[in-house]
Amino acid sequence: MSSTPRGRWGWGFENELIDEDGLRDRKAFLESVLDFPERPVLEPTPIAEATIPEPEIEAPDHLDSFCTSNRAVRARRTYGMAPPENIRAFHGDFSPAPDVVAQPRTETDVEDVLEWATDRRVAVTPVTGGTGVAGGTSPPAGENRADYAGTVALDLRNLNDVLEVDEQSRTALIEGGTMGPDINDQLEAHGLHLRHYPQSYELSGLGGWIATRSGGHYATRYTHIDELVESVRMICPAGAFETQRLPAHGAGPDANRLVCGSEGSLGVITRAWMQVEPRPRYRSEAAVYFDGVLKAAAAIRRIVQAKLYPANCRLHDRVETTMYGLEDVDRDMVVLGFESTDGPTEGAIERALEICEEAGGDCPDGPDHHGEGYGCSRSPDSDVVRWGRAFQMGGAGNAAIPLCVVRGTVETAVTWDRFPAFHEAMLAAFDEVLEPECGMGHVSTRFSHVYPDGPAVYYTFQAPGDADPDRRIEQWRRIKRAGLDTVMEYDLTPTHHHAVGRNHREWYAEQIPENYGESLRAVKGVLDPAGVMNPGVLVDAPEEE
Amino acid sequence: MSSTPRGRWGWGFENELIDEDGLRDRKAFLESVLDFPERPVLEPTPIAEATIPEPEIEAPDHLDSFCTSNRAVRARRTYGMAPPENIRAFHGDFSPAPDVVAQPRTETDVEDVLEWATDRRVAVTPVTGGTGVAGGTSPPAGENRADYAGTVALDLRNLNDVLEVDEQSRTALIEGGTMGPDINDQLEAHGLHLRHYPQSYELSGLGGWIATRSGGHYATRYTHIDELVESVRMICPAGAFETQRLPAHGAGPDANRLVCGSEGSLGVITRAWMQVEPRPRYRSEAAVYFDGVLKAAAAIRRIVQAKLYPANCRLHDRVETTMYGLEDVDRDMVVLGFESTDGPTEGAIERALEICEEAGGDCPDGPDHHGEGYGCSRSPDSDVVRWGRAFQMGGAGNAAIPLCVVRGTVETAVTWDRFPAFHEAMLAAFDEVLEPECGMGHVSTRFSHVYPDGPAVYYTFQAPGDADPDRRIEQWRRIKRAGLDTVMEYDLTPTHHHAVGRNHREWYAEQIPENYGESLRAVKGVLDPAGVMNPGVLVDAPEEE
Repeated sequence: MSSTPRGRWGWGFENELIDEDGLRDRKAFLESVLDFPERPVLEPTPIAEATIPEPEIEAPDHLDSFCTSNRAVRARRTYGMAPPENIRAFHGDFSPAPDVVAQPRTETDVEDVLEWATDRRVAVTPVTGGTGVAGGTSPPAGENRADYAGTVALDLRNLNDVLEVDEQSRTALIEGGTMGPDINDQLEAHGLHLRHYPQSYELSGLGGWIATRSGGHYATRYTHIDELVESVRMICPAGAFETQRLPAHGAGPDANRLVCGSEGSLGVITRAWMQVEPRPRYRSEAAVYFDGVLKAAAAIRRIVQAKLYPANCRLHDRVETTMYGLEDVDRDMVVLGFESTDGPTEGAIERALEICEEAGGDCPDGPDHHGEGYGCSRSPDSDVVRWGRAFQMGGAGNAAIPLCVVRGTVETAVTWDRFPAFHEAMLAAFDEVLEPECGMGHVSTRFSHVYPDGPAVYYTFQAPGDADPDRRIEQWRRIKRAGLDTVMEYDLTPTHHHAVGRNHREWYAEQIPENYGESLRAVKGVLDPAGVMNPGVLVDAPEEE
Repeated sequence: MSSTPRGRWGWGFENELIDEDGLRDRKAFLESVLDFPERPVLEPTPIAEATIPEPEIEAPDHLDSFCTSNRAVRARRTYGMAPPENIRAFHGDFSPAPDVVAQPRTETDVEDVLEWATDRRVAVTPVTGGTGVAGGTSPPAGENRADYAGTVALDLRNLNDVLEVDEQSRTALIEGGTMGPDINDQLEAHGLHLRHYPQSYELSGLGGWIATRSGGHYATRYTHIDELVESVRMICPAGAFETQRLPAHGAGPDANRLVCGSEGSLGVITRAWMQVEPRPRYRSEAAVYFDGVLKAAAAIRRIVQAKLYPANCRLHDRVETTMYGLEDVDRDMVVLGFESTDGPTEGAIERALEICEEAGGDCPDGPDHHGEGYGCSRSPDSDVVRWGRAFQMGGAGNAAIPLCVVRGTVETAVTWDRFPAFHEAMLAAFDEVLEPECGMGHVSTRFSHVYPDGPAVYYTFQAPGDADPDRRIEQWRRIKRAGLDTVMEYDLTPTHHHAVGRNHREWYAEQIPENYGESLRAVKGVLDPAGVMNPGVLVDAPEEE
């Protein structure tokens, strides 16, 4: 694991946060290409001057060896990566900082923390990488905090081993705190990989992925991490919740699926048997251009309904390619990729390109094929590097905060029949809010994953924000709300793969069947009877009787 | 829907139960080929002479128009298709018969039944086709029944329409009581099909499939019905539980997965949006022979790990092929099938056959390919007809009862690394019990579905049973127990796709994480607060406080 600390207010490690040259370039780009008004360049508040409240409680002696109340450590475990969190961190506001940061070395340590937290009514926030963008990895604040004697961030970084590998079944037992690259470095000796590359791959880890139902690089078939979980162990205040190693079963509602998406509100995911596989030996890729998102969507629909199972099948509309610096692209781009551990992928991509052509797509460069030799470089996947770092987060994301850009996303999934009307409504909703809030702004559209019955659609907004952080957070909230309210008008979900956390909870409460919310609360009452696990996230503890 | 009544003690409709000639042939086969001692030929007890207790309660007036206490109707809704149930029905013992059979015409009728049942503490057993083999579609008996004022079988047969079809998203809204053939007859007008063909296809329906996590004909990828559920509505005593139409989401633990496998213990599944698709236009099939189950398993493992996604990939060992009349086959048979709506399947099956050959398999007839023209006959799938009727249930199954054969199955799923030892242990366990219980007997092995990390294995036992029905049921129980106890020694599941019901519940209680059992009970407390839904199945209602 890298010993360089993470960037406090932006993506990547501290030494990778955007530099002066990067900021100047991005400022020029925003003002010239995206027509933003002149952007100020703000300075981050140094950590020494930041607001970090004194801890209200301390870890007891028996937990002392793996707990700390160090100011800087507490600051680093205060926030995830949601825009308001980045803004507050940049401006030195760490007011919800945890009182204690626990870094358990064993599952017994985890149990000990939960026992103490339950006894003393301390709120526990499990954190793996802390890259969540839904406000789910922060200690409770405000009213929520008042219910607790204190807060502890339970940082899983020391549970970072691949414990066992079953080469025959292609599965591996991996600890919850293991970060993406550390997982695959350890699996490499077995010629195996966990083929799950969320954009946060290098900075996030297994426990967080499972807790948030993370979406990986597979655009079809293995989209959410759920599909790769063979069994899982979650330590709850009421005890361990462990499922069996089984390829599948039909014995009652699937217990794994209760753990996937539990967002730290039921327990701490300490380990899981995951499906792994060799690196792909064959790969084919192509970029196809369309005149309009609806035409591109029609092609994508046919590809996925033909069960060609592309590993990659993303749509980036022309606003998006421009936003990320591909100004020369004036059409809507579909990136297709097929991969196989077993045999050539030419046939599949050629069939997909035929479908694209019939739907009006243009693939000027033709497909690119990689054979046997592929996959020997250190990077697990060149696309990952391109998407995960340079393409989005490292650049545009980190520049947004110092350049006062209001930047956020709204994501959902929608059946094909409703997509055209929904898409129009979303663009209209953003249009309507951007001008009054920020004077102008842009919204781009992406399909991150696709299913036979519809796409996961992803809208990214960028607008010139106010220099005042509170006002800027309010702008972000209002724009995001305009999108999410439209999502609800179409009876859709507030999140396809970014979790509910606190930021989507209001809309989640509308989404879930009423009886299901009560069911989950009842489950929380069983697994976390004192209601100390990640309060405010997903569902509340049941009312006391 | 056919108006011919179902066979009371055997598979199929009343007019399809095995006839005198069939019985004579099967008797000769058992005695000559399978070396059984001479079999008696028992006569079923006529319904007029059967034990059917008088009802203890009657439906109230406001439910009267769709409820009945008719003796024959109650008899027909007493049992599912578990061997002890068939034996009791054959010998005229319908002692757990429901007091009332309700056949609701609308969801409001369903709500009214549940309201009455909750008020009056009447146990409700939801039934779709009543083909379950785990004892889950029968009213409670014995101690369980004493807790209730009466019992009602809630028969969904009148909720049998395809209500809406979304051709673009390839999904359809289907009522819970719609039987397999009725689903596809109604979808035919749209050129679509629900490609889920359990062996019970012609006699079972959507609500039961979802409630039991039914396994379909797809051997890989879309194995359980869970994979095809887009959204679902379950009427619970506490109200409707309805999920949204979404291709996917990441908002908390998936609510659909709580409904899948709920086995009528939480509510009644009245409708679901299901993923459907056109008939396959291309298909390739082959039978490959191996010298030994382990060699065949090695080939299957490689095929599924190569992600070739065969629609059919079954292993039948040489005992099984013999049992079903293919006495000339003296090796272990793998049946492979590929299908596609989009393009030729030759390439995929040829690659699979290459893998088989490398693993020592022999495909004397080579693959058989079907192109464009395939799929126009009335039968949805010739394999279905072969497997679902003649191949197993209609023949051997229905002959077992009158010929005093003890016949049953034990099924599980196991990772590849443990399969060889587990398989040996299972065969040894059956060997050890068959001789003392029945003097002799046979056990055959099948893979019904396969996953990258292991197969769903399925053992079928047949042995000469006692003419006394109680003694024969006890023989069945002891042989099944020997298998299930071995399953538990290997920390596996008592069911891959036949549900828990009452017959697997003892082992299910060992399988599930303790905390999960309590969680499900808490959920039952929310959705079914009076504990009237399918008592004795899956989990108990929470203890009253």
